[in-house]
Amino acid sequence: MAVVPDFVLPSPVSASARLAGVIRCTPVLIEPVLDAHFDCRLFFKAEHLQVTGSFKFRGASHAVSRLADGIRGVATHSSGNHGAALAAAARARGIEAHVVMPENAVSTKVAAVRAHGGQVHFCAPTQAAREAGLAEWVEQGFAAVPPYDHDDIIAGQGTLALELLDQVDDLDVIVAPIGGGGMLAGIARAVAERGSGAAVIGAEPSGADDASRSLAAGRRVDEHRPQTIADGLRALIGTRNLEILDAAEVPIVTVSEAQIRTAMGLLWRQLKQVIEPSGAVALAAVAAAPERFTGQRVGVVLSGGNLDIDTLLDHLPDA
Amino acid sequence: MAVVPDFVLPSPVSASARLAGVIRCTPVLIEPVLDAHFDCRLFFKAEHLQVTGSFKFRGASHAVSRLADGIRGVATHSSGNHGAALAAAARARGIEAHVVMPENAVSTKVAAVRAHGGQVHFCAPTQAAREAGLAEWVEQGFAAVPPYDHDDIIAGQGTLALELLDQVDDLDVIVAPIGGGGMLAGIARAVAERGSGAAVIGAEPSGADDASRSLAAGRRVDEHRPQTIADGLRALIGTRNLEILDAAEVPIVTVSEAQIRTAMGLLWRQLKQVIEPSGAVALAAVAAAPERFTGQRVGVVLSGGNLDIDTLLDHLPDA
Repeated sequence: MAVVPDFVLPSPVSASARLAGVIRCTPVLIEPVLDAHFDCRLFFKAEHLQVTGSFKFRGASHAVSRLADGIRGVATHSSGNHGAALAAAARARGIEAHVVMPENAVSTKVAAVRAHGGQVHFCAPTQAAREAGLAEWVEQGFAAVPPYDHDDIIAGQGTLALELLDQVDDLDVIVAPIGGGGMLAGIARAVAERGSGAAVIGAEPSGADDASRSLAAGRRVDEHRPQTIADGLRALIGTRNLEILDAAEVPIVTVSEAQIRTAMGLLWRQLKQVIEPSGAVALAAVAAAPERFTGQRVGVVLSGGNLDIDTLLDHLPDA
Repeated sequence: MAVVPDFVLPSPVSASARLAGVIRCTPVLIEPVLDAHFDCRLFFKAEHLQVTGSFKFRGASHAVSRLADGIRGVATHSSGNHGAALAAAARARGIEAHVVMPENAVSTKVAAVRAHGGQVHFCAPTQAAREAGLAEWVEQGFAAVPPYDHDDIIAGQGTLALELLDQVDDLDVIVAPIGGGGMLAGIARAVAERGSGAAVIGAEPSGADDASRSLAAGRRVDEHRPQTIADGLRALIGTRNLEILDAAEVPIVTVSEAQIRTAMGLLWRQLKQVIEPSGAVALAAVAAAPERFTGQRVGVVLSGGNLDIDTLLDHLPDA
């Protein structure tokens, strides 16, 4: 695989070359019981087994790898998986990571950032406070690494699709969840770059359907009040990602909360994998729009497995 | 691999040859975060990814494979994974499976037997009622397949150790949970048959420490009132298994309920695998007796992943 010179726009292929030995090539899981249930061949790309438990480590690692030598460190604001991923990527390069988090962030997400060596700075739970918090660190010389709306991030996330295309022959379609859209845009670019004939489909909670509405309107929607259990998909679609998905004509399937819960239950019971709600949304889309998938070879991205396990385990029956 | 003639006592190697294409060769999972946490190299044998979600399918399939042609079907009594495993094994051979279950059995376990094509017959929740229920089916010509205390079952379960020894070089030790002891006895026989230098260690909840006490006393204990969250390990050790483990001088490490919960949480959070409490007991033993494992290459058997997922998922926070 040739390394593309850095003055070219980063692409999934160039990101893949840069990230060799840094990111994990995650396995593809199969389960005949689920194939029978959905009447198609399902190939689950297990990004919950990526370093830090989500695909976010790919984009974060790629962005960090492209920083100039001598950089003091990185900073971001995050309430979710991007913070932990960036902390781990920074640690791997031996630089500092500062993560501005809303003071009402889930305690396990805060713990994850710290476990990967990131420094957490709390702020008021507003977008303005988050951005102001981040600006302070940028002023001190830390590089801001955004969670999704950036070509480095998009290219990094796209590496998962290159792996999947190598791992499974003759995929008809790849379905992946969309929040801010960095992963889905990266997949669309990877499929195009590889010249694969696989279709790309996005999956979105109907309670956070800003991507569907933005693509239909041809512009980013203003009104966005996400309400979904899929906390990783509450972000508003990024403008760069909207452009890419619009140009690639990527359709979006919306799914109900009940469909997300059902998909998550199936993944836990049948595949025995700990998948967070956002990570089950792609399988929920297969259930929601069976006419698009029946009889096909379907790549399903399990995007992450981070959720509050201890709360769940507290509900286990005792002896 | 040569097939051992049937008039020889069945062994893990002969079982392995019989079961080619029937059982799954389950993967071995690794996670550097857990290696660092436990200060040893951990190789997790993922039997929760076996057909029916536990290692029980190995022994059940082997026992079914050794039944004479023309047999009408099989029967057992079970409140757990053996019932579903036997149902699936019988279905694969195209014969009936009757499973006598206590009327207070967990509904998901009942559903699992039925999902794999088994016929469920409820009885009073006593050992006498279970045995009487089973006797009825045996009288009608169905072959009784016991859950653990039988050479066919022991040999079948032992196949997991043969796979593990093929998958991981230079294992120092294999640690596995013990309930009735069929799996642990099978592992001990497989290690001996293969001529491996790996030690074998059993892991048992201190609230169900009949194996430890039986091995210490040199005879099966009478008093056994199991109290543990690890519902798969509440059975009293089988007499055949006690003989084998005693002869092989297999030590048992006992673990607390807190250690089981902690191990289960680590497996869910770090390995992202849905493991039932019994399945986490081997890792709990690594925590309970670190002096036996530090710096070693340790095979850890994750024996099963069947638990009441829907009850847990009901406790997920809403949008």
